[in-house]
Amino acid sequence: MTKNLHVCLTPALLPLFNVEEYIVVIIDIFRATSSICYGIENGAEAIIPVSQVEECSAYREKGLDYLLAAERDGKVVDGFDFGNSPFSYTVEKVAGKTIVLTTTNGTHALHLSRSAKKIVIGSFLNLTALSNWLKIQNENILLVCAGWKNNFNLEDTLFAGAVVNQLKDNGFELDDAAIAANDLFQIGKADINQYLKKTSHGERLKKLGIEKDIEFCLQIDIATAIPILDGERLVKLQ
Amino acid sequence: MTKNLHVCLTPALLPLFNVEEYIVVIIDIFRATSSICYGIENGAEAIIPVSQVEECSAYREKGLDYLLAAERDGKVVDGFDFGNSPFSYTVEKVAGKTIVLTTTNGTHALHLSRSAKKIVIGSFLNLTALSNWLKIQNENILLVCAGWKNNFNLEDTLFAGAVVNQLKDNGFELDDAAIAANDLFQIGKADINQYLKKTSHGERLKKLGIEKDIEFCLQIDIATAIPILDGERLVKLQ
Repeated sequence: MTKNLHVCLTPALLPLFNVEEYIVVIIDIFRATSSICYGIENGAEAIIPVSQVEECSAYREKGLDYLLAAERDGKVVDGFDFGNSPFSYTVEKVAGKTIVLTTTNGTHALHLSRSAKKIVIGSFLNLTALSNWLKIQNENILLVCAGWKNNFNLEDTLFAGAVVNQLKDNGFELDDAAIAANDLFQIGKADINQYLKKTSHGERLKKLGIEKDIEFCLQIDIATAIPILDGERLVKLQ
Repeated sequence: MTKNLHVCLTPALLPLFNVEEYIVVIIDIFRATSSICYGIENGAEAIIPVSQVEECSAYREKGLDYLLAAERDGKVVDGFDFGNSPFSYTVEKVAGKTIVLTTTNGTHALHLSRSAKKIVIGSFLNLTALSNWLKIQNENILLVCAGWKNNFNLEDTLFAGAVVNQLKDNGFELDDAAIAANDLFQIGKADINQYLKKTSHGERLKKLGIEKDIEFCLQIDIATAIPILDGERLVKLQ
Protein backbone atom coordinates (compact mmCIF):
# COMPACT_ATOMS: atom_id res chain seq x y z
CA MET A 1 0.00 0.00 0.00
CA THR A 2 1.09 3.56 -0.72
CA LYS A 3 1.16 5.56 2.49
CA ASN A 4 0.07 9.17 2.33
CA LEU A 5 1.75 11.98 4.18
CA HIS A 6 -0.64 14.92 4.08
CA VAL A 7 -0.67 18.31 5.76
CA CYS A 8 -3.86 20.06 6.82
CA LEU A 9 -2.82 23.72 6.94
CA THR A 10 -5.64 24.86 9.23
CA PRO A 11 -8.51 23.20 11.13
CA ALA A 12 -10.90 24.88 8.68
CA LEU A 13 -9.65 22.44 6.04
CA LEU A 14 -10.16 19.31 8.16
CA PRO A 15 -13.57 18.53 6.57
CA LEU A 16 -11.66 17.90 3.30
CA PHE A 17 -9.89 14.90 4.82
CA ASN A 18 -11.27 11.49 5.82
CA VAL A 19 -9.70 11.79 9.24
CA GLU A 20 -10.49 8.17 10.11
CA GLU A 21 -7.97 7.01 7.50
CA TYR A 22 -5.02 8.66 9.24
CA ILE A 23 -2.85 8.83 12.27
CA VAL A 24 -3.21 12.52 13.11
CA VAL A 25 -0.47 14.70 14.56
CA ILE A 26 -1.75 17.87 16.24
CA ILE A 27 0.58 20.87 15.94
CA ASP A 28 0.23 24.12 17.89
CA ILE A 29 3.81 25.25 18.34
CA PHE A 30 3.10 28.54 20.18
CA ARG A 31 2.43 27.07 22.68
CA ALA A 32 -0.11 24.37 23.45
CA THR A 33 1.49 21.30 21.90
CA SER A 34 4.99 22.34 22.99
CA SER A 35 3.76 22.60 26.59
CA ILE A 36 1.90 19.29 26.34
CA CYS A 37 5.04 17.52 25.12
CA TYR A 38 7.09 19.12 27.87
CA GLY A 39 4.52 18.29 30.54
CA ILE A 40 4.25 14.63 29.54
CA GLU A 41 8.03 14.43 29.29
CA ASN A 42 8.23 15.78 32.85
CA GLY A 43 5.99 13.12 34.28
CA ALA A 44 2.50 14.58 34.14
CA GLU A 45 0.18 11.59 34.49
CA ALA A 46 -2.20 12.97 31.90
CA ILE A 47 -3.29 16.15 30.18
CA ILE A 48 -7.00 16.49 29.44
CA PRO A 49 -7.73 18.86 26.57
CA VAL A 50 -11.10 20.61 26.67
CA SER A 51 -12.69 23.17 24.37
CA GLN A 52 -14.22 25.63 26.79
CA VAL A 53 -12.97 27.49 29.84
CA GLU A 54 -16.20 26.43 31.60
CA GLU A 55 -15.45 22.74 31.01
CA CYS A 56 -12.03 23.32 32.47
CA SER A 57 -13.28 24.98 35.66
CA ALA A 58 -15.83 22.20 36.10
CA TYR A 59 -12.92 19.94 37.02
CA ARG A 60 -12.23 22.14 40.05
CA GLU A 61 -15.63 21.16 41.41
CA LYS A 62 -14.81 17.47 41.02
CA GLY A 63 -12.60 17.99 44.04
CA LEU A 64 -9.70 15.98 42.70
CA ASP A 65 -6.15 17.11 42.47
CA TYR A 66 -6.29 18.63 39.00
CA LEU A 67 -4.16 21.47 37.77
CA LEU A 68 -6.24 23.76 35.61
CA ALA A 69 -4.72 25.51 32.61
CA ALA A 70 -6.73 27.97 30.59
CA GLU A 71 -5.68 30.55 28.08
CA ARG A 72 -7.54 32.78 25.70
CA ASP A 73 -5.85 35.02 23.15
CA GLY A 74 -2.47 34.18 24.61
CA LYS A 75 -3.20 35.06 28.26
CA VAL A 76 -3.92 33.03 31.43
CA VAL A 77 -7.61 33.17 32.34
CA ASP A 78 -8.26 34.66 35.80
CA GLY A 79 -8.51 32.08 38.58
CA PHE A 80 -6.65 29.30 36.78
CA ASP A 81 -3.39 27.65 37.84
CA PHE A 82 -1.59 28.48 34.64
CA GLY A 83 -1.93 28.88 30.90
CA ASN A 84 0.14 27.69 27.98
CA SER A 85 3.63 28.71 28.98
CA PRO A 86 5.94 25.70 28.84
CA PHE A 87 7.71 27.06 31.94
CA SER A 88 4.61 26.05 33.92
CA TYR A 89 5.11 22.41 32.92
CA THR A 90 8.28 21.63 34.88
CA VAL A 91 8.87 18.39 36.81
CA GLU A 92 8.30 20.22 40.11
CA LYS A 93 4.88 21.41 39.03
CA VAL A 94 3.45 18.57 36.97
CA ALA A 95 5.04 15.22 37.97
CA GLY A 96 2.26 12.79 38.86
CA LYS A 97 -0.47 15.39 38.23
CA THR A 98 -3.34 15.53 35.81
CA ILE A 99 -3.71 18.83 33.98
CA VAL A 100 -6.92 20.05 32.41
CA LEU A 101 -6.08 22.32 29.48
CA THR A 102 -8.08 24.58 27.24
CA THR A 103 -6.42 26.72 24.57
CA THR A 104 -7.44 28.90 21.68
CA ASN A 105 -6.38 26.79 18.74
CA GLY A 106 -4.77 23.47 19.68
CA THR A 107 -7.72 21.99 21.51
CA HIS A 108 -10.00 22.99 18.65
CA ALA A 109 -7.89 21.07 16.14
CA LEU A 110 -7.74 18.08 18.43
CA HIS A 111 -11.49 17.88 18.93
CA LEU A 112 -12.10 18.10 15.18
CA SER A 113 -9.75 15.12 14.70
CA ARG A 114 -11.53 12.78 17.14
CA SER A 115 -12.29 10.09 14.56
CA ALA A 116 -8.64 9.52 13.60
CA LYS A 117 -6.97 6.10 14.00
CA LYS A 118 -4.67 7.62 16.59
CA ILE A 119 -3.97 11.18 17.70
CA VAL A 120 -0.51 12.17 18.83
CA ILE A 121 1.01 15.52 19.76
CA GLY A 122 3.95 17.10 18.00
CA SER A 123 6.35 19.94 18.70
CA PHE A 124 9.98 20.74 17.97
CA LEU A 125 10.71 19.40 21.46
CA ASN A 126 9.94 15.80 20.44
CA LEU A 127 10.49 16.09 16.66
CA THR A 128 12.81 13.16 16.06
CA ALA A 129 11.20 10.77 18.56
CA LEU A 130 7.83 11.48 16.96
CA SER A 131 9.14 11.15 13.41
CA ASN A 132 10.88 7.85 14.17
CA TRP A 133 7.65 6.47 15.59
CA LEU A 134 5.60 7.70 12.61
CA LYS A 135 8.01 6.03 10.19
CA ILE A 136 7.24 2.55 11.47
CA GLN A 137 3.45 2.82 11.76
CA ASN A 138 2.58 1.75 8.21
CA GLU A 139 -0.39 4.12 8.18
CA ASN A 140 -1.41 7.31 6.40
CA ILE A 141 -0.30 10.36 8.34
CA LEU A 142 -2.06 13.71 8.56
CA LEU A 143 -0.19 16.62 10.13
CA VAL A 144 -2.81 19.06 11.41
CA CYS A 145 -1.68 22.63 11.93
CA ALA A 146 -3.79 24.35 14.57
CA GLY A 147 -3.13 27.71 12.95
CA TRP A 148 -4.42 30.97 14.35
CA LYS A 149 -8.18 31.37 14.55
CA ASN A 150 -8.65 28.86 11.74
CA ASN A 151 -6.20 30.62 9.41
CA PHE A 152 -2.74 29.57 8.24
CA ASN A 153 0.31 30.29 10.35
CA LEU A 154 3.96 29.81 9.61
CA GLU A 155 5.23 28.26 12.84
CA ASP A 156 2.89 25.26 12.71
CA THR A 157 3.53 24.82 8.99
CA LEU A 158 7.29 24.95 9.53
CA PHE A 159 7.06 22.19 12.10
CA ALA A 160 4.91 20.12 9.74
CA GLY A 161 7.71 20.63 7.22
CA ALA A 162 10.28 19.42 9.75
CA VAL A 163 8.33 16.16 10.11
CA VAL A 164 7.93 15.80 6.33
CA ASN A 165 11.68 16.36 6.03
CA GLN A 166 12.31 13.37 8.32
CA LEU A 167 9.68 11.10 6.73
CA LYS A 168 9.86 11.92 3.04
CA ASP A 169 12.32 9.23 2.01
CA ASN A 170 10.26 6.46 3.61
CA GLY A 171 7.84 5.70 0.79
CA PHE A 172 5.18 8.30 1.58
CA GLU A 173 3.19 10.13 -1.08
CA LEU A 174 3.12 13.85 -0.29
CA ASP A 175 0.31 16.28 -1.07
CA ASP A 176 0.98 19.86 -2.18
CA ALA A 177 0.75 21.17 1.38
CA ALA A 178 3.36 18.66 2.56
CA ILE A 179 5.68 19.70 -0.27
CA ALA A 180 5.18 23.37 0.56
CA ALA A 181 5.69 22.82 4.30
CA ASN A 182 8.94 20.95 3.68
CA ASP A 183 10.22 23.68 1.33
CA LEU A 184 9.39 26.37 3.89
CA PHE A 185 11.22 24.36 6.56
CA GLN A 186 14.28 24.19 4.31
CA ILE A 187 14.24 27.99 4.07
CA GLY A 188 13.75 28.53 7.79
CA LYS A 189 15.64 25.68 9.42
CA ALA A 190 19.01 27.39 9.82
CA ASP A 191 17.43 29.86 12.28
CA ILE A 192 13.75 29.22 12.83
CA ASN A 193 13.35 31.95 15.42
CA GLN A 194 14.83 34.52 13.06
CA TYR A 195 12.68 33.25 10.20
CA LEU A 196 9.50 33.54 12.27
CA LYS A 197 10.30 37.05 13.46
CA LYS A 198 9.02 38.43 10.18
CA THR A 199 5.56 36.95 10.73
CA SER A 200 2.51 38.73 12.03
CA HIS A 201 2.09 36.12 14.76
CA GLY A 202 5.65 36.73 15.95
CA GLU A 203 4.79 40.40 16.36
CA ARG A 204 1.64 39.56 18.28
CA LEU A 205 3.39 37.12 20.61
CA LYS A 206 6.20 39.61 21.17
CA LYS A 207 3.64 42.12 22.42
CA LEU A 208 2.41 39.53 24.91
CA GLY A 209 5.93 39.38 26.37
CA ILE A 210 6.49 35.68 25.73
CA GLU A 211 9.71 35.82 23.76
CA LYS A 212 11.31 33.38 26.22
CA ASP A 213 8.45 30.94 25.63
CA ILE A 214 9.04 31.19 21.89
CA GLU A 215 12.73 30.43 22.25
CA PHE A 216 11.84 27.50 24.46
CA CYS A 217 9.28 26.10 22.01
CA LEU A 218 11.81 26.16 19.16
CA GLN A 219 14.31 23.87 20.88
CA ILE A 220 14.67 20.68 18.87
CA ASP A 221 14.73 17.21 20.46
CA ILE A 222 14.95 18.05 24.15
CA ALA A 223 12.19 15.46 24.76
CA THR A 224 11.46 11.89 23.68
CA ALA A 225 7.95 11.43 25.10
CA ILE A 226 5.10 11.23 22.57
CA PRO A 227 1.74 12.29 24.01
CA ILE A 228 -1.11 10.16 22.62
CA LEU A 229 -4.84 10.54 23.09
CA ASP A 230 -6.34 7.74 25.17
CA GLY A 231 -10.06 8.35 25.59
CA GLU A 232 -10.25 11.90 26.87
CA ARG A 233 -6.70 12.02 28.16
CA LEU A 234 -3.33 12.67 26.59
CA VAL A 235 -0.85 10.25 28.11
CA LYS A 236 2.68 9.11 27.41
CA LEU A 237 2.90 6.63 24.53
CA GLN A 238 4.40 3.43 25.98
CA MET B 1 -3.33 53.98 6.35
CA THR B 2 -1.47 50.67 6.41
CA LYS B 3 -2.42 48.61 3.40
CA ASN B 4 -2.72 44.87 3.88
CA LEU B 5 -1.55 42.31 1.38
CA HIS B 6 -3.14 39.01 2.37
CA VAL B 7 -3.31 35.60 0.73
CA CYS B 8 -6.31 33.31 1.07
CA LEU B 9 -4.83 29.88 0.36
CA THR B 10 -8.13 28.18 -0.55
CA PRO B 11 -11.75 29.30 -1.00
CA ALA B 12 -12.57 27.33 2.17
CA LEU B 13 -10.74 30.04 4.13
CA LEU B 14 -12.62 32.97 2.55
CA PRO B 15 -15.09 33.22 5.46
CA LEU B 16 -12.11 34.29 7.63
CA PHE B 17 -11.68 37.47 5.62
CA ASN B 18 -13.90 40.55 5.43
CA VAL B 19 -13.91 40.39 1.67
CA GLU B 20 -15.60 43.80 1.35
CA GLU B 21 -12.42 45.46 2.67
CA TYR B 22 -10.27 44.26 -0.20
CA ILE B 23 -9.60 44.34 -3.87
CA VAL B 24 -9.67 40.62 -4.61
CA VAL B 25 -7.48 38.87 -7.18
CA ILE B 26 -8.80 35.48 -8.27
CA ILE B 27 -6.10 32.92 -9.11
CA ASP B 28 -6.71 29.60 -10.85
CA ILE B 29 -3.52 29.06 -12.82
CA PHE B 30 -4.41 25.63 -14.31
CA ARG B 31 -6.29 26.87 -16.23
CA ALA B 32 -9.33 29.10 -15.73
CA THR B 33 -7.75 32.44 -14.91
CA SER B 34 -4.93 31.93 -17.41
CA SER B 35 -7.51 31.36 -20.15
CA ILE B 36 -9.61 34.32 -19.02
CA CYS B 37 -6.59 36.65 -19.17
CA TYR B 38 -5.66 35.30 -22.60
CA GLY B 39 -9.23 35.58 -23.90
CA ILE B 40 -9.66 39.18 -22.74
CA GLU B 41 -6.21 40.04 -24.12
CA ASN B 42 -7.32 38.60 -27.46
CA GLY B 43 -10.36 40.81 -27.72
CA ALA B 44 -13.18 38.78 -26.14
CA GLU B 45 -15.87 41.34 -25.39
CA ALA B 46 -16.67 39.69 -22.07
CA ILE B 47 -16.39 36.43 -20.17
CA ILE B 48 -19.31 35.51 -17.95
CA PRO B 49 -18.33 33.15 -15.12
CA VAL B 50 -21.09 30.85 -13.86
CA SER B 51 -21.10 28.15 -11.21
CA GLN B 52 -23.11 25.39 -12.83
CA VAL B 53 -22.98 23.66 -16.20
CA GLU B 54 -26.77 24.11 -16.38
CA GLU B 55 -26.46 27.88 -16.02
CA CYS B 56 -23.95 27.81 -18.82
CA SER B 57 -26.13 25.85 -21.22
CA ALA B 58 -29.05 28.17 -20.44
CA TYR B 59 -27.21 30.84 -22.42
CA ARG B 60 -27.53 28.69 -25.56
CA GLU B 61 -31.27 29.01 -25.31
CA LYS B 62 -31.01 32.80 -25.15
CA GLY B 63 -30.24 32.56 -28.86
CA LEU B 64 -27.43 35.09 -28.81
CA ASP B 65 -23.97 34.55 -30.14
CA TYR B 66 -22.37 33.17 -26.98
CA LEU B 67 -19.49 30.76 -26.88
CA LEU B 68 -20.05 28.24 -24.12
CA ALA B 69 -17.12 26.88 -22.13
CA ALA B 70 -17.63 24.19 -19.52
CA GLU B 71 -15.21 21.93 -17.79
CA ARG B 72 -15.48 19.50 -14.93
CA ASP B 73 -12.55 17.65 -13.43
CA GLY B 74 -10.31 19.00 -16.14
CA LYS B 75 -12.34 17.88 -19.19
CA VAL B 76 -14.66 19.66 -21.67
CA VAL B 77 -18.30 18.87 -20.95
CA ASP B 78 -20.11 17.18 -23.86
CA GLY B 79 -21.94 19.57 -26.16
CA PHE B 80 -19.98 22.69 -25.21
CA ASP B 81 -17.81 24.81 -27.51
CA PHE B 82 -14.72 24.39 -25.41
CA GLY B 83 -13.34 24.08 -21.90
CA ASN B 84 -10.49 25.73 -20.09
CA SER B 85 -7.63 25.25 -22.51
CA PRO B 86 -6.01 28.60 -23.24
CA PHE B 87 -5.52 27.45 -26.84
CA SER B 88 -9.28 27.84 -27.28
CA TYR B 89 -9.03 31.54 -26.47
CA THR B 90 -7.17 32.78 -29.56
CA VAL B 91 -8.00 36.01 -31.43
CA GLU B 92 -9.62 33.99 -34.25
CA LYS B 93 -12.00 32.28 -31.87
CA VAL B 94 -12.86 34.91 -29.28
CA ALA B 95 -12.43 38.43 -30.73
CA GLY B 96 -15.69 40.33 -30.25
CA LYS B 97 -17.40 37.34 -28.63
CA THR B 98 -18.91 36.83 -25.23
CA ILE B 99 -17.91 33.58 -23.54
CA VAL B 100 -19.91 31.90 -20.79
CA LEU B 101 -17.54 29.91 -18.60
CA THR B 102 -17.98 27.43 -15.79
CA THR B 103 -15.01 25.71 -14.17
CA THR B 104 -14.32 23.48 -11.21
CA ASN B 105 -12.49 25.85 -8.90
CA GLY B 106 -12.01 29.35 -10.32
CA THR B 107 -15.67 30.26 -10.66
CA HIS B 108 -16.32 28.99 -7.14
CA ALA B 109 -13.68 31.32 -5.68
CA LEU B 110 -15.03 34.21 -7.72
CA HIS B 111 -18.60 33.76 -6.58
CA LEU B 112 -17.52 33.59 -2.93
CA SER B 113 -15.70 36.92 -3.37
CA ARG B 114 -18.71 38.82 -4.75
CA SER B 115 -18.76 41.44 -1.99
CA ALA B 116 -15.19 42.64 -2.64
CA LYS B 117 -14.46 46.28 -3.59
CA LYS B 118 -13.26 45.08 -6.96
CA ILE B 119 -12.53 41.66 -8.40
CA VAL B 120 -9.75 41.21 -10.93
CA ILE B 121 -8.24 38.13 -12.55
CA GLY B 122 -4.61 37.13 -12.26
CA SER B 123 -2.30 34.71 -14.03
CA PHE B 124 1.37 34.53 -14.93
CA LEU B 125 0.31 35.86 -18.36
CA ASN B 126 -0.53 39.32 -16.95
CA LEU B 127 1.60 39.24 -13.77
CA THR B 128 3.45 42.56 -14.11
CA ALA B 129 0.55 44.53 -15.59
CA LEU B 130 -1.64 43.34 -12.74
CA SER B 131 0.98 44.01 -10.07
CA ASN B 132 1.65 47.52 -11.37
CA TRP B 133 -2.06 48.30 -11.22
CA LEU B 134 -2.41 46.85 -7.71
CA LYS B 135 0.50 48.98 -6.49
CA ILE B 136 -1.32 52.24 -7.18
CA GLN B 137 -4.79 51.34 -5.86
CA ASN B 138 -4.23 52.38 -2.24
CA GLU B 139 -6.46 49.55 -1.04
CA ASN B 140 -6.07 46.29 0.88
CA ILE B 141 -5.41 43.41 -1.46
CA LEU B 142 -6.51 39.81 -1.04
CA LEU B 143 -5.03 37.20 -3.36
CA VAL B 144 -7.51 34.31 -3.50
CA CYS B 145 -6.12 30.95 -4.58
CA ALA B 146 -8.85 28.83 -6.15
CA GLY B 147 -7.00 25.69 -5.08
CA TRP B 148 -8.20 22.20 -5.94
CA LYS B 149 -11.58 21.17 -4.53
CA ASN B 150 -11.21 23.66 -1.70
CA ASN B 151 -7.76 22.42 -0.70
CA PHE B 152 -4.36 24.07 -1.06
CA ASN B 153 -2.41 23.80 -4.29
CA LEU B 154 1.08 24.90 -5.14
CA GLU B 155 0.58 26.52 -8.55
CA ASP B 156 -1.94 29.09 -7.33
CA THR B 157 0.13 29.77 -4.22
CA LEU B 158 3.28 30.24 -6.30
CA PHE B 159 1.52 32.83 -8.42
CA ALA B 160 0.26 34.62 -5.29
CA GLY B 161 3.90 34.65 -4.23
CA ALA B 162 4.92 36.18 -7.56
CA VAL B 163 2.49 39.05 -6.94
CA VAL B 164 3.68 39.47 -3.33
CA ASN B 165 7.23 39.57 -4.67
CA GLN B 166 6.33 42.54 -6.89
CA LEU B 167 4.28 44.39 -4.26
CA LYS B 168 6.13 43.75 -1.01
CA ASP B 169 8.32 46.86 -1.03
CA ASN B 170 5.35 49.17 -1.50
CA GLY B 171 4.25 49.63 2.10
CA PHE B 172 2.00 46.60 2.42
CA GLU B 173 1.68 44.56 5.60
CA LEU B 174 1.89 40.84 4.78
CA ASP B 175 0.12 38.02 6.58
CA ASP B 176 1.78 34.64 7.16
CA ALA B 177 0.28 33.17 4.00
CA ALA B 178 1.68 36.04 1.92
CA ILE B 179 5.14 35.51 3.45
CA ALA B 180 4.95 31.77 2.76
CA ALA B 181 3.71 32.27 -0.81
CA ASN B 182 6.56 34.66 -1.55
CA ASP B 183 9.15 32.29 -0.08
CA LEU B 184 7.77 29.40 -2.15
CA PHE B 185 7.93 31.58 -5.25
CA GLN B 186 11.58 32.34 -4.52
CA ILE B 187 12.28 28.60 -4.43
CA GLY B 188 10.35 27.85 -7.60
CA LYS B 189 10.86 30.91 -9.76
CA ALA B 190 13.97 29.77 -11.65
CA ASP B 191 11.94 26.99 -13.29
CA ILE B 192 8.31 27.00 -12.20
CA ASN B 193 7.31 24.13 -14.48
CA GLN B 194 10.06 21.94 -13.08
CA TYR B 195 9.14 22.92 -9.52
CA LEU B 196 5.49 22.04 -10.05
CA LYS B 197 6.28 18.67 -11.60
CA LYS B 198 6.75 17.21 -8.15
CA THR B 199 3.20 18.09 -7.12
CA SER B 200 0.22 15.79 -7.09
CA HIS B 201 -1.74 18.19 -9.26
CA GLY B 202 1.02 18.15 -11.87
CA GLU B 203 0.69 14.38 -12.02
CA ARG B 204 -3.06 14.62 -12.39
CA LEU B 205 -2.91 17.21 -15.15
CA LYS B 206 -0.24 15.22 -16.94
CA LYS B 207 -2.63 12.29 -17.06
CA LEU B 208 -5.21 14.54 -18.71
CA GLY B 209 -2.73 15.22 -21.51
CA ILE B 210 -2.54 18.96 -21.02
CA GLU B 211 1.18 19.43 -20.62
CA LYS B 212 1.16 22.02 -23.43
CA ASP B 213 -1.54 23.96 -21.60
CA ILE B 214 0.62 23.94 -18.48
CA GLU B 215 3.62 25.30 -20.33
CA PHE B 216 1.40 27.96 -21.85
CA CYS B 217 -0.06 29.00 -18.48
CA LEU B 218 3.41 29.47 -16.99
CA GLN B 219 4.51 32.08 -19.52
CA ILE B 220 5.16 35.36 -17.74
CA ASP B 221 3.96 38.71 -19.07
CA ILE B 222 2.73 37.80 -22.53
CA ALA B 223 -0.42 39.85 -21.80
CA THR B 224 -1.21 43.30 -20.39
CA ALA B 225 -5.00 43.12 -20.15
CA ILE B 226 -6.50 42.93 -16.65
CA PRO B 227 -9.94 41.28 -16.57
CA ILE B 228 -12.22 42.96 -14.02
CA LEU B 229 -15.68 41.94 -12.89
CA ASP B 230 -18.37 44.39 -14.02
CA GLY B 231 -21.74 43.16 -12.81
CA GLU B 232 -21.87 39.58 -14.04
CA ARG B 233 -19.24 40.00 -16.73
CA LEU B 234 -15.47 39.98 -16.77
CA VAL B 235 -14.31 42.73 -19.11
CA LYS B 236 -11.05 44.44 -19.92
CA LEU B 237 -10.06 47.05 -17.32
CA GLN B 238 -9.87 50.40 -19.14
